[in-house]
Amino acid sequence: MSEIVKHDQGLMRKSNKILILNLIREKRPISRAELAKITGMSPTSVSRIVSKLMEFGLIEETKLTSNGVGRKASLLDTNELSACSISIYLDLDSCIIGIVDFDGNLLKEERLTYDTENLIWTDIMNRVCETVKEMVKATAADHIKIVGLGVAVPGIVDTHRGVVVFSPQLGWTGVNLKKYLEEELGYRVVIENAIKAKALAEGIYGGAKDSSRAVYINFGSGVGSALITEDEIFRGTTNSAGEVGHTTMDPNGKLCDCGRRGCLQTYIADWALIQEAQMVKDVSTVGEIFEAYFSKEQWAVNIIKRLHTYIGVAICNVICMYNPDSVIIGGSLIQQDSNMEAIINKRVEELIWEPFSNTYQIKESKLGNKAGLLGMAELIFNDYIATEL
Amino acid sequence: MSEIVKHDQGLMRKSNKILILNLIREKRPISRAELAKITGMSPTSVSRIVSKLMEFGLIEETKLTSNGVGRKASLLDTNELSACSISIYLDLDSCIIGIVDFDGNLLKEERLTYDTENLIWTDIMNRVCETVKEMVKATAADHIKIVGLGVAVPGIVDTHRGVVVFSPQLGWTGVNLKKYLEEELGYRVVIENAIKAKALAEGIYGGAKDSSRAVYINFGSGVGSALITEDEIFRGTTNSAGEVGHTTMDPNGKLCDCGRRGCLQTYIADWALIQEAQMVKDVSTVGEIFEAYFSKEQWAVNIIKRLHTYIGVAICNVICMYNPDSVIIGGSLIQQDSNMEAIINKRVEELIWEPFSNTYQIKESKLGNKAGLLGMAELIFNDYIATEL
Repeated sequence: MSEIVKHDQGLMRKSNKILILNLIREKRPISRAELAKITGMSPTSVSRIVSKLMEFGLIEETKLTSNGVGRKASLLDTNELSACSISIYLDLDSCIIGIVDFDGNLLKEERLTYDTENLIWTDIMNRVCETVKEMVKATAADHIKIVGLGVAVPGIVDTHRGVVVFSPQLGWTGVNLKKYLEEELGYRVVIENAIKAKALAEGIYGGAKDSSRAVYINFGSGVGSALITEDEIFRGTTNSAGEVGHTTMDPNGKLCDCGRRGCLQTYIADWALIQEAQMVKDVSTVGEIFEAYFSKEQWAVNIIKRLHTYIGVAICNVICMYNPDSVIIGGSLIQQDSNMEAIINKRVEELIWEPFSNTYQIKESKLGNKAGLLGMAELIFNDYIATEL
Repeated sequence: MSEIVKHDQGLMRKSNKILILNLIREKRPISRAELAKITGMSPTSVSRIVSKLMEFGLIEETKLTSNGVGRKASLLDTNELSACSISIYLDLDSCIIGIVDFDGNLLKEERLTYDTENLIWTDIMNRVCETVKEMVKATAADHIKIVGLGVAVPGIVDTHRGVVVFSPQLGWTGVNLKKYLEEELGYRVVIENAIKAKALAEGIYGGAKDSSRAVYINFGSGVGSALITEDEIFRGTTNSAGEVGHTTMDPNGKLCDCGRRGCLQTYIADWALIQEAQMVKDVSTVGEIFEAYFSKEQWAVNIIKRLHTYIGVAICNVICMYNPDSVIIGGSLIQQDSNMEAIINKRVEELIWEPFSNTYQIKESKLGNKAGLLGMAELIFNDYIATEL
């Protein structure tokens, strides 16, 4: 039996605040009476929490009133500029920097490109910090309150310490990004794995909004997944759960970029498709393979048909392990073909083990990389509320 | 955002009772003051809950007293006979029926064998019910209070409705076992997947006792796994999470008993090993293959070495998805060789992706099938406490 005590009174008070705040975010505008009804808390407790949240400026009374019977009650809404996040989505050769408000609106967005192979991480982050400073300066008159900065990183991240443990995509190992950014910019900083941040945003704003157990799977330079249950990221012991790309399909298979043989991603990562295509054609991008596939060139049809099968296998295997009600797929490979959602749904239906039929929905992400920004904003808000309120 | 409200006040009061009760079970004997210290609850709240638990007879004051400074406080202990469970572990051709007390002691045990192929489920369950009645009769003078009956079933179980949805091993589909047993025996009945029940017991009494995120993996007539986080079973949407045996390794591979191709268990289930061995020898059990392996017969060495590899792959893949701190392995294949734990540890070290090195421990189950009985007892106790207290 684990010794962790799940419910102490302090935690309970905190989680009631977060509960009320999230209900207002979800159902706004909403009355105090309705909040009491949904949560089962007493009207007095609800009013006390609402006052605290108003004191912090996070919510406000609207001019609207409830239209039920009895005394008119004023409705509550969020004050979306009262807690904004600077969100950064780091990719292989570029990053997106955005300012996200409390309601998940992307207020500003900038894109930076860089050459990961020839720059060390401090070079890149220096440029990022300059851009952040300029963006904040440019919004000085907008009455927004920035409460923190979040960075979505491809690779394995120690969220607790704020360290990029290992990012094969960026070539970074043991980078203490949190410490660096806190010193450079002075904001509260949260670092998270990019797939986990995207999954969280899909669960709150995206295709898994109405799901209570959703998986996001990303197909691109690697294959990664993340499970969200009740708006919480399933992390595992070292925040590394969901590494489906490195599950072994064939211990005697093709060499993976991780040095092991037959990982799932050796069948479907973009570099694996390009390597294969180069046997017959001088191509350097996945886009060229898809172009040839759309023109029905046989070699490309063979590659893409196998891609469909292994994307299907990846999804089936994730369903076997997590038994989710929703699967959101995204990433550069999915974005290549507007028919991907339909093709993959059909392939999974053919491949799935019968007891799992009709237990899930598969949808393509509509948020795309914006999910990375929104997910980091949510993590910043959670951290802000947990420490400040 | 999901609409489920996580913390209502009633649930909170209930979970505080369960929290206190589980702490007494874990740390007995223990004083009220110590309980207040660990939980952060007020001494008054602790005393109120303790009185309630004593009223139900679940705990009692011992003659021991605390030996700290100040007034001597009497220590609390569980009353292990105050809540006992009848636990049934259903297997392919036999079942074990046990009476388990509140401290996880197996008081009585009976074994029944049957012929699943020639009997329908009611025939088997009639015999089980007869045995249960005899066992209860025989313990009539023992002052034990039976609070429910739990059945561990191989296959997919709808725990909520108490229905065996599909058990390939037993050949049962859509069997409402809960309804049947409640009517026949009159106890509260809980039905659960056998792997999940075993995993829960490993987390509470077995090799994962000190773990906060443990996986149990069973290698036998199939391959199944279950994740336990903080003494809770990870179920998924339809209680089917952890079906690692039916993850696809090769979509063009060998036919599985599920009708699909290349499932992980086609490489390692006992029937797959026997099928392979029969290419060269007239064997009918896995034991014969292991005998030949111990005598260094080349064909058997080839089969068992591949078994080691694919058991290693199964564990690596589960680690990639769940990122646990502990892996407990069990089942009939593991029990064949006393060196299995050491061999598999070495194989996984060779196969695991580097970022997962040193994040887990792999241990062989010491509880064996008894885990199925203890896990069902725990589920019965939880159900009893949740509904009665």
